[in-house]
Amino acid sequence: MQKPLILVTNDDGITAPGIRNLVNFMSEIGDVIVVAPNSPQSGKGHAITINSTLTYEEIQLEGSQKDYALSGTPVDCVKFALDKILPRRPDLVVSGINHGSNSSINVIYSGTMSAAVEAGMEGLQAIGFSLLDFSWEADFTQGKKFIQKIVRNILENPLPKGIVLNVNIPNLKENEIKGIKVCRQADAKWEENFDERINPHGKKYFWLTGYFNNMDSGKDADETALTDGFVSIVPVKFDLTAHEYIAELSEILND
Amino acid sequence: MQKPLILVTNDDGITAPGIRNLVNFMSEIGDVIVVAPNSPQSGKGHAITINSTLTYEEIQLEGSQKDYALSGTPVDCVKFALDKILPRRPDLVVSGINHGSNSSINVIYSGTMSAAVEAGMEGLQAIGFSLLDFSWEADFTQGKKFIQKIVRNILENPLPKGIVLNVNIPNLKENEIKGIKVCRQADAKWEENFDERINPHGKKYFWLTGYFNNMDSGKDADETALTDGFVSIVPVKFDLTAHEYIAELSEILND
Repeated sequence: MQKPLILVTNDDGITAPGIRNLVNFMSEIGDVIVVAPNSPQSGKGHAITINSTLTYEEIQLEGSQKDYALSGTPVDCVKFALDKILPRRPDLVVSGINHGSNSSINVIYSGTMSAAVEAGMEGLQAIGFSLLDFSWEADFTQGKKFIQKIVRNILENPLPKGIVLNVNIPNLKENEIKGIKVCRQADAKWEENFDERINPHGKKYFWLTGYFNNMDSGKDADETALTDGFVSIVPVKFDLTAHEYIAELSEILND
Repeated sequence: MQKPLILVTNDDGITAPGIRNLVNFMSEIGDVIVVAPNSPQSGKGHAITINSTLTYEEIQLEGSQKDYALSGTPVDCVKFALDKILPRRPDLVVSGINHGSNSSINVIYSGTMSAAVEAGMEGLQAIGFSLLDFSWEADFTQGKKFIQKIVRNILENPLPKGIVLNVNIPNLKENEIKGIKVCRQADAKWEENFDERINPHGKKYFWLTGYFNNMDSGKDADETALTDGFVSIVPVKFDLTAHEYIAELSEILND
């Protein structure tokens, strides 16, 4: 039987430890091709490159792995891989492992998750993985067992059309992780606080900073599952329609 | 009674005819402050600027209007306006008028709509407006009556928490537009086709191109409404959870 073809991408850049770990985990399951950004692309959301051009390099990072470093965003990587790199449609697209959480509202800012969403828009099976540890030296091996279990499960039980997975892994040792919990996106937001500075020429400039405000203590929310020591999985869709509000809005506007 | 405070932003840049028209339309309804990108930001999705800094200039574009040109993305503009510019929380955030459609799946790539979504995440009333004409010289006045009607309606009947509006205006004369239709996001996608070229140094580079593939002829889809000559309005939410799939996925993964 042919091994599954797995496309791996991320938003921290092709040399980040998170993606190298994910490549290793996926190599035990299928044939892996990596198409990932040649530079950090955190917070790029679903951005695509339309007002400038893209270039790529085939690089050799380890073993027989095929690695392509693209000058674009995570979403560009998925589009480019499908149109220009892959020999056939992949059986799965995985993105990550992100250095840092993409739980709750972070899914919308996340380049990691946007790559998975783009793959879903292309009709492919797709999963984004993130570890709740921002550091470059994070230990990604603690998630291996869960990541491989989820991937094998999805290869056997494909997701319905229009759905991809957002998987977050708590920053705990493998034997401390309590299991896997399927959740909804917690109601949370970032409270902005721009840090104002003066440049050497006397002009003000600003750094975006802020803190994460979780307003949701629901037992079925991903933030709660993570706090309780579970791997959280949110099924994510890209039909953004608030179907439940169509009828009422129609009445209001057609009065 | 105090006039409503309206924040206006866009993704085509602060000098684009689309936003200047929207500013004019909004000035007849409330006090308007503009915080918009100082350069085109189409296709930036929900990108934010975290690995570099932001600067802004207060500029005088017309009349007594307060205009702030920010060096960031549309989402940066909303965050920055709330934290650093506005005297109080605005009663409404409007984004656009985009030069070109943001119907169906385009909502996810759109900087215009991402700005509206960001405002919604901040708990604000928010609407994105787009005209189905990409040209810089597009006639935006045809949408004035509908845009003002929608805005006045929303100021009187606030949207529920977690919902913003995606409004698209067909490229027709005002008297040819059949009315307003509340819709769902059509099932459509872009088919990529990267255009390969060779630079003067012999290296390959690529332009992202493609065509729009509407796979949805449903009468309740926004693409259909636009084709039929209606202004389409999709209520958009940013809880991306596929709630309907949580129970089944939970069974599959915990087998």
